[in-house]
Amino acid sequence: MELNEAKQAFKERLKLLDAYDHAMGVMYYDIETAAPKNAAAGFGDTVATLSEVTYKLSVNEEVFEVLDFLTAHADELDEITRREVEEVQKGLRLLRNIPIDEWVEYQRAQAEASNVWHEAKVKSDYAMFEPHLKKLVDFTVRFAKYAAPEMDPYDYWLNEYEEGFTQDVLDKYFEKIKAGLVPLIHKIQEKEQPDVSFLHREYPVWKQREFSDKLMEIMGIDRDDCAIGETEHPFTTGFNKHDVRITTHYHEDALESNMYSVIHEGGHAIYEMGNSDEISESNLSGGASCGMHESQSRFYENLIGRSRAFTDLVYPVIKELFPEQFADVTPDAFYRAVNRAEPSLIRTEADELTYSLHVLIRYEIEKKLLHGELDTKDLPAEWNRLYKEYLGVDVPNDKAGCLQDSHWSSGSLGYFPSYSLGSAYGAQILAGMKKELDVDKLVSEGKISVITEWLREHILKYGQLKKPAELLRLSTGEDFDPDHYVEYLKDKFGKLYGIE
Amino acid sequence: MELNEAKQAFKERLKLLDAYDHAMGVMYYDIETAAPKNAAAGFGDTVATLSEVTYKLSVNEEVFEVLDFLTAHADELDEITRREVEEVQKGLRLLRNIPIDEWVEYQRAQAEASNVWHEAKVKSDYAMFEPHLKKLVDFTVRFAKYAAPEMDPYDYWLNEYEEGFTQDVLDKYFEKIKAGLVPLIHKIQEKEQPDVSFLHREYPVWKQREFSDKLMEIMGIDRDDCAIGETEHPFTTGFNKHDVRITTHYHEDALESNMYSVIHEGGHAIYEMGNSDEISESNLSGGASCGMHESQSRFYENLIGRSRAFTDLVYPVIKELFPEQFADVTPDAFYRAVNRAEPSLIRTEADELTYSLHVLIRYEIEKKLLHGELDTKDLPAEWNRLYKEYLGVDVPNDKAGCLQDSHWSSGSLGYFPSYSLGSAYGAQILAGMKKELDVDKLVSEGKISVITEWLREHILKYGQLKKPAELLRLSTGEDFDPDHYVEYLKDKFGKLYGIE
Repeated sequence: MELNEAKQAFKERLKLLDAYDHAMGVMYYDIETAAPKNAAAGFGDTVATLSEVTYKLSVNEEVFEVLDFLTAHADELDEITRREVEEVQKGLRLLRNIPIDEWVEYQRAQAEASNVWHEAKVKSDYAMFEPHLKKLVDFTVRFAKYAAPEMDPYDYWLNEYEEGFTQDVLDKYFEKIKAGLVPLIHKIQEKEQPDVSFLHREYPVWKQREFSDKLMEIMGIDRDDCAIGETEHPFTTGFNKHDVRITTHYHEDALESNMYSVIHEGGHAIYEMGNSDEISESNLSGGASCGMHESQSRFYENLIGRSRAFTDLVYPVIKELFPEQFADVTPDAFYRAVNRAEPSLIRTEADELTYSLHVLIRYEIEKKLLHGELDTKDLPAEWNRLYKEYLGVDVPNDKAGCLQDSHWSSGSLGYFPSYSLGSAYGAQILAGMKKELDVDKLVSEGKISVITEWLREHILKYGQLKKPAELLRLSTGEDFDPDHYVEYLKDKFGKLYGIE
Repeated sequence: MELNEAKQAFKERLKLLDAYDHAMGVMYYDIETAAPKNAAAGFGDTVATLSEVTYKLSVNEEVFEVLDFLTAHADELDEITRREVEEVQKGLRLLRNIPIDEWVEYQRAQAEASNVWHEAKVKSDYAMFEPHLKKLVDFTVRFAKYAAPEMDPYDYWLNEYEEGFTQDVLDKYFEKIKAGLVPLIHKIQEKEQPDVSFLHREYPVWKQREFSDKLMEIMGIDRDDCAIGETEHPFTTGFNKHDVRITTHYHEDALESNMYSVIHEGGHAIYEMGNSDEISESNLSGGASCGMHESQSRFYENLIGRSRAFTDLVYPVIKELFPEQFADVTPDAFYRAVNRAEPSLIRTEADELTYSLHVLIRYEIEKKLLHGELDTKDLPAEWNRLYKEYLGVDVPNDKAGCLQDSHWSSGSLGYFPSYSLGSAYGAQILAGMKKELDVDKLVSEGKISVITEWLREHILKYGQLKKPAELLRLSTGEDFDPDHYVEYLKDKFGKLYGIE
């Protein structure tokens, strides 16, 4: 094989697969935002058919041959192609090493588990889900051994979801979270809480839609490159840097819910739109990792969006759109309300301060499950014990407890930590940024685009060309250091609640 | 080859192609309704890539062999498979008979013509478009000769778009339209016109959206099977009977525009949703032809939607949604306003009475173009002459004249008549229906679903299983008879304008 020939075959196959990904991605966006309810069956059929086509296009000896040839000649490749080859190899590592019939069996188990989980959650009936979860845990351990026999299985999966992060790093990370935040959270539980009732007055949906447009404008999001859709569980998807979609949901009695959905998803969108042209056209578009993507969404949502400078910037916009609802609300009351910190049961509704404790609990449980130290039968008891210990709350039932998230039902064990890492990355990046920019002043003046430009130059433009750890060093001059995150939270919430 | 083996290969290929059609259909719906502006380039790339894949899956010797085998054994096939084979053969007739390089050249010419047309229309500059149109006309004649050397080229294309309808039928049809309607239209031009100004008061878009929901409810459209999107030029698309999408557009100063878009597209949707389960799952889903599809949309839009019974049914709904805007509007004024008939320049904005004259003009021009009796250079003069003669209007420029429609720029010559036939079919079907149902009474009582059920039983359920002419016989007991249409219009507009 010639190098150029192999490179061309590789690039052509990527382009072809990209077309399928794009089409299926649009179908997914459509089914979540626009399709009628009964479209689900036809959607499922088509995605299954096209997935089979792409599976055959990706997983075959001809492809492996080209890939292995390019891997062997990695030094002769340009940087982008080299990383593309690396990423594709990484994506195939598992598939190349497991017997195909186990893979098929796993997919069936996954689909079943996902179905049962939906019903089990509605009924708050963990017992019906338990045997399915057990099966998935077994698969997860077995697959890790096929792909990386030399690694601890949980380390394998953690590293899959967030490259470079295994238990040695995460144990220390979560230890700091626990030591730094649990006492603070317990102290806040004794303090008086700010009033949030005005956030739950009647905010007509058609006016909230206008508010979303305003927020995207404030964030400097170019609407020619980014659309907004409506869905039940907001998400962002990007097909290339000029075609990104955020989604949100509207509740007439919850102004904050849509507001911070738009800002959070807007942060994801800014990442996708911030890739350099070269990266956007390559197979390295998007974000460096789940955690790094989450760092950007939470950067805008919390570090910027819940700062005093930002709530003051948005306050007059809300006053204009909702003069009656905000008639008696001061800028200070607004700032305090969106920063109310209170231990709660549901991860996705958690506030900035308590969020990582929810993740910590899942991390501890996953670790035990994958090491056979916790039987799936005993999971609810362990879950409830940890929620009491770290967050001080009593879990009333499994629906509000260990059945709340979909991740385990789709076989994703090891994914949760990246949510928390995102916040920690963000705090570290903000500290790095503050060495060069007066962030609060820029926000006060509505110059969010200057902040975005800094992020673009240091992080966003690279897409997946560089890995999370490297991007942290590039943008902050330091290795990953969770102290920034813990300090940021202690400082912010200490002041808010008058502690120390 | 074994029959069962061939049948299986055929069905599997159809299923695979259907998945691609579905995915590209959703992408098309998305780009027209949801995607940001700059998504166009990526959309184009992906559709081009996937179209190439489907072309290769459809047009190859292996497929031809299976098809020809099944065609030779047509008597041994069940009815659905036999019609599927027929339709696929029909779709491939042209592609199997033209040299591939001419096909490629044609596609390039088409893409160029389409681009140039957009610019030419904006600039109202027919001269820049003319050489491209000339090329497409040449291709059109040549391709007809490849596909069906025994046929007149215009007959070939007319029959392609509306099976069974060639110039011998259409000449007589349009003669009746001309003789019956042109004098009436000229008489109306001397009459006083009803007031329509109240339709152009301020109707906030968010309230019009509620009105759309109400209209779909009145039409009995199940929202679990049919969604509504927003776009510039409304259209309908269906992926299966449980996943249909209509689209509309909102103008704050035009209540009627959205109202009749929703009803028209709703009629198309009802067709798609009305297929039997068996047909919906086959390759014969959708409508029997463009004309038959249009017959249903215009049935609901005009025959039902612009009847006095219907405007009276909707009147209180509008009064409730727009009490101030409709404060001084009587039911009679509303009925008269939405039935104002007045010759105009733009086909897509034409009223019920004058619509088919716009089509007649295009029919006469296409006929001459394809027979070499009209040079593309002389097209604008001929266009303007005919508009003056039939509609009594002076065409001020080519933008409002022969450049208004996109059809010719995409090489579609012979398509226009099906728009007019749709109205004629509809009037004949209504006459057939009235022998069995008291249509006005049902509409008055809001029982549109009874009407839809009748259409479903006589037409919709068959999809493409039966051809237009056969469906007319099935539903009305008669062959195609344009007198119903002409009589309906003469009667309705004669009464409205007090003529005879």
